[in-house]
Amino acid sequence: MRHFLSLYDFTKEEILEILSLAIKIKKEAKIKNYIPYLQHQSLGMLFEKSSTRTRISFEVGMYQLGGKSLFLSSSDLQLGRGEPTRDSARVMGRMIDMIMIRTFDQKVLDEFAKFSGIPVINGLTDKYHPVQLMADYLTMIEQGKDKNPVVAYVGDGNNIAHSWMMLAGKLGFELRIATPKGHEPWQEIINDAKEISAISGAKIMYTNDPKEAVHKADVVTTDTWLSMGQEDKKNQKIEEFAGYMVDTNMMKLAKSDAIFLHCLPAYRGYEVSEEVLENYANIVFDEAENRLHVQKGIMVWLEEKRCLKS
Amino acid sequence: MRHFLSLYDFTKEEILEILSLAIKIKKEAKIKNYIPYLQHQSLGMLFEKSSTRTRISFEVGMYQLGGKSLFLSSSDLQLGRGEPTRDSARVMGRMIDMIMIRTFDQKVLDEFAKFSGIPVINGLTDKYHPVQLMADYLTMIEQGKDKNPVVAYVGDGNNIAHSWMMLAGKLGFELRIATPKGHEPWQEIINDAKEISAISGAKIMYTNDPKEAVHKADVVTTDTWLSMGQEDKKNQKIEEFAGYMVDTNMMKLAKSDAIFLHCLPAYRGYEVSEEVLENYANIVFDEAENRLHVQKGIMVWLEEKRCLKS
Amino acid sequence: MRHFLSLYDFTKEEILEILSLAIKIKKEAKIKNYIPYLQHQSLGMLFEKSSTRTRISFEVGMYQLGGKSLFLSSSDLQLGRGEPTRDSARVMGRMIDMIMIRTFDQKVLDEFAKFSGIPVINGLTDKYHPVQLMADYLTMIEQGKDKNPVVAYVGDGNNIAHSWMMLAGKLGFELRIATPKGHEPWQEIINDAKEISAISGAKIMYTNDPKEAVHKADVVTTDTWLSMGQEDKKNQKIEEFAGYMVDTNMMKLAKSDAIFLHCLPAYRGYEVSEEVLENYANIVFDEAENRLHVQKGIMVWLEEKRCLKS
Repeated sequence: MRHFLSLYDFTKEEILEILSLAIKIKKEAKIKNYIPYLQHQSLGMLFEKSSTRTRISFEVGMYQLGGKSLFLSSSDLQLGRGEPTRDSARVMGRMIDMIMIRTFDQKVLDEFAKFSGIPVINGLTDKYHPVQLMADYLTMIEQGKDKNPVVAYVGDGNNIAHSWMMLAGKLGFELRIATPKGHEPWQEIINDAKEISAISGAKIMYTNDPKEAVHKADVVTTDTWLSMGQEDKKNQKIEEFAGYMVDTNMMKLAKSDAIFLHCLPAYRGYEVSEEVLENYANIVFDEAENRLHVQKGIMVWLEEKRCLKS
Repeated sequence: MRHFLSLYDFTKEEILEILSLAIKIKKEAKIKNYIPYLQHQSLGMLFEKSSTRTRISFEVGMYQLGGKSLFLSSSDLQLGRGEPTRDSARVMGRMIDMIMIRTFDQKVLDEFAKFSGIPVINGLTDKYHPVQLMADYLTMIEQGKDKNPVVAYVGDGNNIAHSWMMLAGKLGFELRIATPKGHEPWQEIINDAKEISAISGAKIMYTNDPKEAVHKADVVTTDTWLSMGQEDKKNQKIEEFAGYMVDTNMMKLAKSDAIFLHCLPAYRGYEVSEEVLENYANIVFDEAENRLHVQKGIMVWLEEKRCLKS
Repeated sequence: MRHFLSLYDFTKEEILEILSLAIKIKKEAKIKNYIPYLQHQSLGMLFEKSSTRTRISFEVGMYQLGGKSLFLSSSDLQLGRGEPTRDSARVMGRMIDMIMIRTFDQKVLDEFAKFSGIPVINGLTDKYHPVQLMADYLTMIEQGKDKNPVVAYVGDGNNIAHSWMMLAGKLGFELRIATPKGHEPWQEIINDAKEISAISGAKIMYTNDPKEAVHKADVVTTDTWLSMGQEDKKNQKIEEFAGYMVDTNMMKLAKSDAIFLHCLPAYRGYEVSEEVLENYANIVFDEAENRLHVQKGIMVWLEEKRCLKS
């Protein structure tokens, strides 16, 4: 049984295979050829954090694959009332066919993967956001930025940064992570990234200088510093992230045909300027749409692996 | 791309065309002939206010049309966390095919209509409730009250009153709006109603005397004065609306075969008496059911217009 | 029109007929033969209490039957804002085909059954939990424990105990209810159980001694004493229920091949020990899964009865 918890668990070939499948399914959808790959199957979507993109993309995606999704927020569930995770996982595994979880702690995913008996998909944790990175890379492919690209990530060393490190580490491209001091990626992720880069030949550089990171880059990207539930630290964050806004001047340091990516929601005037966001809006909203397509690819791939095994 | 934001945006012919379509689809449903007009399509239903009728009627309607609906409450979404409406609109427009919005401010609808790239349906704002009025008029047709009817609206000059003004103004029938002083319809709506009545020949009269409005009317209708979130002003409202309860004595002033309509929920003993509500319950619950049928007609009509254009 | 409000309303033959149907539908599902028994039909699921098993099992079940379910929590609905139950029931009855209600007061079910004009299913009240008991009995059948079994219920004289009394009373088997003093089943249920046992030959014994109840039993079962919303009384409950934990020593008093059932969620170290729950986990999670299958049987049965009548 395969899960989709972190890109760390996948080979380069598997990542590219899932992306190929996503591209195929996207093409089919664009000509309204909706093949019921997951007919009669149910996807549980367990949310311990609110969401727009994740909720809609999984729910619509599952519908277009001929299946059913259940939106389960923790306030509606007994999870909120102290049932052990392994019991909830076992019950759900008896009734549904696949589960997507958006939660804080990666360990909840591991428990579900261990006990549910069904494929588990990471829909965002404090550690990783792998489905987002698959959408980002699909967008890079569509924009012709998948041939030895140089990617600059400017901002917080958070779950998005971590996931870029896994993606680059697995696929073997150059990644530059610029974060303010004190906002570097987790050390354990840096270690993991080093380990996988040794195999793929990826170059991952860490800096506290955004300009160094962006210099001649093919792709510039960032993420909000004000993660959900942290709005109270706003003023402190603004100070700490001074100089980290991706604006037109910063984009000028990148290659002239560089693209800008943002996983949204965007806070204009904080991590990105209004001008940059709107100049690259076509690509940024392609990237958002690609969540839909790439997640369909992931779900169909997981189902194929399950069928092969049984 | 057509939207369904206000009846003001429609011609008489278009309104009647949508109603014809709704009648056809209702007939099909009654013999369990569910034609998948919107197969593979997804409807986002965005609720910033709670709802029974709107939620269930759109969700069941979309299902019976072969499509999928997503119930999105603002508490589950990132809209509640400060993402600009135009960004949410653009993301949703990439993933779903149509959106229904129930919100306070009509401007939210306009933003979605401008930026989402998909048809937007007004599911209730503080200004208008056009889907309700389409259901009301469908009920009038079924009750034989669509030949030069005289309609009396007794109560608050609110979104329902506004929508009656648009319906009468477009279709050209006689409407009498009786409200207490200080509860008249918005001036801008009165102006718009005057403008469209000049074309259709509608007669719209405003009065502070319910008896004058109801005299020899074919249809008597009202709406709660206690709109959602205003329960604290209850005692003041009761005083202001003294004499505005539609009771058996008031119904006696209308034509002997007059019908009573109510969009529900009804507050017995306030805007309507128990006796009147229960005497006309068959019609009132037909009216509620017609929300389902008329909204199916609206969605299919919007999709047809989109296809014609593309 | 038949409803599923309490087992009291059913004959032994009807209960067994529903179980046969559930077994047939379970077999079909296991070979992925999903017959659309309820195609184009909509199930409203009205929750005034949170739920995992009930929510997921009904929603997935309805999907697998080819139908649609609507998750309606009371906070999203106008029910929470004072609309009379009979009005909500009549509106829903016009738009949906069947309704499942999870609420506190059995009278809400009776109102819906009276006014909605559609079949109503009890998804849990303070009085009864009949769908759970159908799943329990299906598990007993699968475990070969349906031939004159002796069932011991150890714990709180609550809705689960009441439902066991109805099941035994209708089917005619031996049931021993052990509760602490002050936690006995409701007197009205004891009276009803006596009445139906006189017909079926059921033996129902009430005791304050768990060991007496469990002696040579075929099935031992319990339920949490800490019902939802009562967590504040925890310490008092622990004292009152001293000696009522189903642990390995207690299971040794039952027959050597006795099974243990638990409707979940389980509070390890309170009503059941970790060891017992995990030793019988296969059966307990079969029991959870059987909620899915038995509820599909109930829905199809109700629909068949409706069609016969009309």
